[in-house]
Amino acid sequence: MKSQDLQTFIESNKVAWEAAGDGVRRKILGYDESLMLVLVEFDEGAFGSPHRHPHIQVSYVVRGSFEVEIDGKRRTLFEGDSFYVPSDCLHGAVALEPSTLIDTFAPMREDYVSNGRS
Amino acid sequence: MKSQDLQTFIESNKVAWEAAGDGVRRKILGYDESLMLVLVEFDEGAFGSPHRHPHIQVSYVVRGSFEVEIDGKRRTLFEGDSFYVPSDCLHGAVALEPSTLIDTFAPMREDYVSNGRS
Repeated sequence: MKSQDLQTFIESNKVAWEAAGDGVRRKILGYDESLMLVLVEFDEGAFGSPHRHPHIQVSYVVRGSFEVEIDGKRRTLFEGDSFYVPSDCLHGAVALEPSTLIDTFAPMREDYVSNGRS
Repeated sequence: MKSQDLQTFIESNKVAWEAAGDGVRRKILGYDESLMLVLVEFDEGAFGSPHRHPHIQVSYVVRGSFEVEIDGKRRTLFEGDSFYVPSDCLHGAVALEPSTLIDTFAPMREDYVSNGRS
């Protein structure tokens, strides 16, 4: 990773939204090799299809509500709630209204910055 | 770490606030060894004194505003903004109004769960 990619202060209005699927967009708000924080905005009914990745993930519901499925278990989560995804564990989420998540990953999602950013 | 400490779904209203300094309280909302997500609520004027730790930290302003100082550089950050703290880097923050942060750490803050929780 180039050191100039690492920002200390990240002002949200200076970061562009990136498309992240139908009705889903994200902003990468801070990271290094070991940790990444991403804001993800969903239209009502938009979803992250069940998928898995080696990265540990902890997410936080900033706004709205989601039906979250992790390893076959489902829960409806609201603003202020959180969920934990172990490495390589199948998980997905559907936004029940216009909703926003913070997704955090350890290590960082190299695949999120490999297209034109580094 | 005991596996029963690891929760998949974390409902905020089921997690107790812990005192974290004068006018500061936190809820630990999801973690394993490699990653931890913590909600931190500040009264107006409350602060995290400059300190350092080996953990990488990325934080997100959920609500309010902060004057954040990292390695001698200061910035006022507002809702939606973020900051990145390298390992062992001196950092602190003052809440300019009633404010809330998400603090994420890699690896987890063992010191946050060592008193009676594990």
